[in-house]
Amino acid sequence: MLEELKKQVYEANMELPKRGLVTYTWGNVSGIDRESGIFAIKPSGVEYDELKPEDMVLVNLNGEVVEGKYKPSSDTATHVELYKKYENIGGVVHTHSTYAVAWAQAGRDIPLYGTTHADYFCGPIPCTRNLTPEEIDEAYEVNTGKVIIETFEERGVNTKYVPGVICKNHGPFTWGKDANQAVYNAVVLEEVAKMALFTEQVNPKVEPAPDCIRDKHFNRKHGANAYYGQN
Amino acid sequence: MLEELKKQVYEANMELPKRGLVTYTWGNVSGIDRESGIFAIKPSGVEYDELKPEDMVLVNLNGEVVEGKYKPSSDTATHVELYKKYENIGGVVHTHSTYAVAWAQAGRDIPLYGTTHADYFCGPIPCTRNLTPEEIDEAYEVNTGKVIIETFEERGVNTKYVPGVICKNHGPFTWGKDANQAVYNAVVLEEVAKMALFTEQVNPKVEPAPDCIRDKHFNRKHGANAYYGQN
Amino acid sequence: MLEELKKQVYEANMELPKRGLVTYTWGNVSGIDRESGIFAIKPSGVEYDELKPEDMVLVNLNGEVVEGKYKPSSDTATHVELYKKYENIGGVVHTHSTYAVAWAQAGRDIPLYGTTHADYFCGPIPCTRNLTPEEIDEAYEVNTGKVIIETFEERGVNTKYVPGVICKNHGPFTWGKDANQAVYNAVVLEEVAKMALFTEQVNPKVEPAPDCIRDKHFNRKHGANAYYGQN
Amino acid sequence: MLEELKKQVYEANMELPKRGLVTYTWGNVSGIDRESGIFAIKPSGVEYDELKPEDMVLVNLNGEVVEGKYKPSSDTATHVELYKKYENIGGVVHTHSTYAVAWAQAGRDIPLYGTTHADYFCGPIPCTRNLTPEEIDEAYEVNTGKVIIETFEERGVNTKYVPGVICKNHGPFTWGKDANQAVYNAVVLEEVAKMALFTEQVNPKVEPAPDCIRDKHFNRKHGANAYYGQN
Repeated sequence: MLEELKKQVYEANMELPKRGLVTYTWGNVSGIDRESGIFAIKPSGVEYDELKPEDMVLVNLNGEVVEGKYKPSSDTATHVELYKKYENIGGVVHTHSTYAVAWAQAGRDIPLYGTTHADYFCGPIPCTRNLTPEEIDEAYEVNTGKVIIETFEERGVNTKYVPGVICKNHGPFTWGKDANQAVYNAVVLEEVAKMALFTEQVNPKVEPAPDCIRDKHFNRKHGANAYYGQN
Repeated sequence: MLEELKKQVYEANMELPKRGLVTYTWGNVSGIDRESGIFAIKPSGVEYDELKPEDMVLVNLNGEVVEGKYKPSSDTATHVELYKKYENIGGVVHTHSTYAVAWAQAGRDIPLYGTTHADYFCGPIPCTRNLTPEEIDEAYEVNTGKVIIETFEERGVNTKYVPGVICKNHGPFTWGKDANQAVYNAVVLEEVAKMALFTEQVNPKVEPAPDCIRDKHFNRKHGANAYYGQN
Repeated sequence: MLEELKKQVYEANMELPKRGLVTYTWGNVSGIDRESGIFAIKPSGVEYDELKPEDMVLVNLNGEVVEGKYKPSSDTATHVELYKKYENIGGVVHTHSTYAVAWAQAGRDIPLYGTTHADYFCGPIPCTRNLTPEEIDEAYEVNTGKVIIETFEERGVNTKYVPGVICKNHGPFTWGKDANQAVYNAVVLEEVAKMALFTEQVNPKVEPAPDCIRDKHFNRKHGANAYYGQN
Repeated sequence: MLEELKKQVYEANMELPKRGLVTYTWGNVSGIDRESGIFAIKPSGVEYDELKPEDMVLVNLNGEVVEGKYKPSSDTATHVELYKKYENIGGVVHTHSTYAVAWAQAGRDIPLYGTTHADYFCGPIPCTRNLTPEEIDEAYEVNTGKVIIETFEERGVNTKYVPGVICKNHGPFTWGKDANQAVYNAVVLEEVAKMALFTEQVNPKVEPAPDCIRDKHFNRKHGANAYYGQN
């Protein structure tokens, strides 16, 4: 069932260690088939070098396992919330990549300091608030998804233009049109988090890049007038 | 004698260079067989790429070599102290991994800033005091073990919940149920030490993560109600 | 047509991922045949591990594609400006290498702090001003070239002695006698940017190196009295 | 002539890129045969992946080439000064390794912050003064050697206990009983330079480690009472 999707999601998961984004099993990727409303996700706590395409767990939008011999990622309920809210999302990624975690632990949005950031994220990458003790007790992973959604709604940020977030004291989630693009955005977020820290170290009084540079670069790669690449 | 243990300890030692935790021979792993009270440990100063399972040295809890053609690690007496005091420990690791050493040299506990830390260490990772000149002269490696124990006792920290320490001006020791888990905790400690430094660089006024996040994440992976992984 | 040039430019492009200067497709190298006034450049947005020598796009100094099945790099117009202005340049490189970008985003020239820098760049590596919104709207990539030229002209810096620049909020461009040397200078610029940041962290009040050291080292490797290497 | 020495020096040179200490050709190792007073050294500007044992150049203590088809390293005269002054030295290394250069450019001694440092360098690693314009003009590489010697003499530091130095605005030189040990010390110096910077970032008010720790660790590995390793 959904063999092609499982293969894609498997390959997207395997990109995480290859790109240096995960230590041990600390990350997970999912990808959804919108027609059936079923997504494939990494099993919980399984080592990447033992992972096979058929190990991917199929889950529906009620968070119920539809197929699979393993338990799905412990973060599955967060993926469900994001898929339910944002219908244009086809893939979701969570990692504990080093520099993104540093910004999450520091509790700061990642400012847009240049074109590397603007090529993929058209604005600062927001940092959520902490969950309350009650939200943690009630349903930690569900509420992690809800606080991401709250963050984008309260700030009026479009998840299509800013395809990632950092959760306070935790780490990054990214998304995209499919699992592969969500991983791409996770790689970009980590690189941009690293560059932003070094930028502030070179110049502690640095200001964000001008809006005209942000818009120019984002629109070179996205939307009707994009002219980067071969399409 | 204890061939299976020697093989496990050999493999755990070989993880250190693979995970980037050691330069040259700067590290050692041991694992104990509690029934016989004998542990296997890396020989002193032997290069990792020349190491073989049969080179592991067998030592008893009086610190006497029971089997082996090599001298055991110069830190053997520290391992003995930890095994004697903490009966639930099955493996011990010492490294000079870069970021953990930086915190040890700086003489600061590593604060708990987020979930990556809380998943494995349920509180700050303590930094011991320095040994006195008399303690160094008398029995340096024995007293290194004793000052680790003193640190946990005086602070009332349970070594089961905080499976590692940094020794002032020296470096980290970690432990676990076996040699393999002790190495795992050494990898986590180094990653967490790195993230904590970057976190303070992103926000010099950062506060530790709330206790509710610490407890939630530690209990996702440990204890009766753990639900991470496949067990 | 120009098969040897395309091969050289292909190989120079492949150095970028090998030397750790690019993530995904974020970089481009070109090399020019001065006789015909035609240069070969990487196609836009094509992955390095799929790239072949015959994929290089041939472009003339009006920025028109002369040969090639792909669209050329989106930064092609910047390369054109540099080739037109500086007749001694045979190769141009653009990357988003991490530390060079940090200085670009911070909006600071990279000071000459030592001999590693002076061996290849005989003075600070300048940071351009930002383009105005009008310059961005009118012709972003052409004007990126023009603002580089303006920077060197206004400061009276010779591009032969300082073979690279960082564009504000963007990243580095380097050049050389051919594509290969331009890549070499991109590697040096990144290493020098990293060293300069760490230097300021070790000593926030550090001053640039004395002129006599700068001149000695630059002239060991360049000009009539050079004595480094085998020629 | 001296085939065994050339092979040893070749292999010691090849350790530099393997250990991440050099970019391109920026480094050189030599080793001396004290009986004949002839040393083997890397040829100038030759790429490491093209280097062969027979390419090593033989030079005498007047700095004259005795055998070899290539020109010797441009830093040869510095090696000569060190070999002439310190008869117990059997190998010399120069690199531009990143963190050691940062301290050299910052113009600061590397403080002894812990046991990793003390295991190999029994005190701070000194930073020389700059050469004067006259010293540079007269004989740059000879005077680089002389200013290293001056630094150790004026401070009363024994080069046997502190087997390395950083030259202001330039980079590190290390030495040892042979070429191989000199490379080992170059690796240690770079790691210690990195740890020292991170240590100061974790605690800007950090003090050097106590003398009793310094002496204990240095003497575990050196001198009559050493007990680290198998000898």
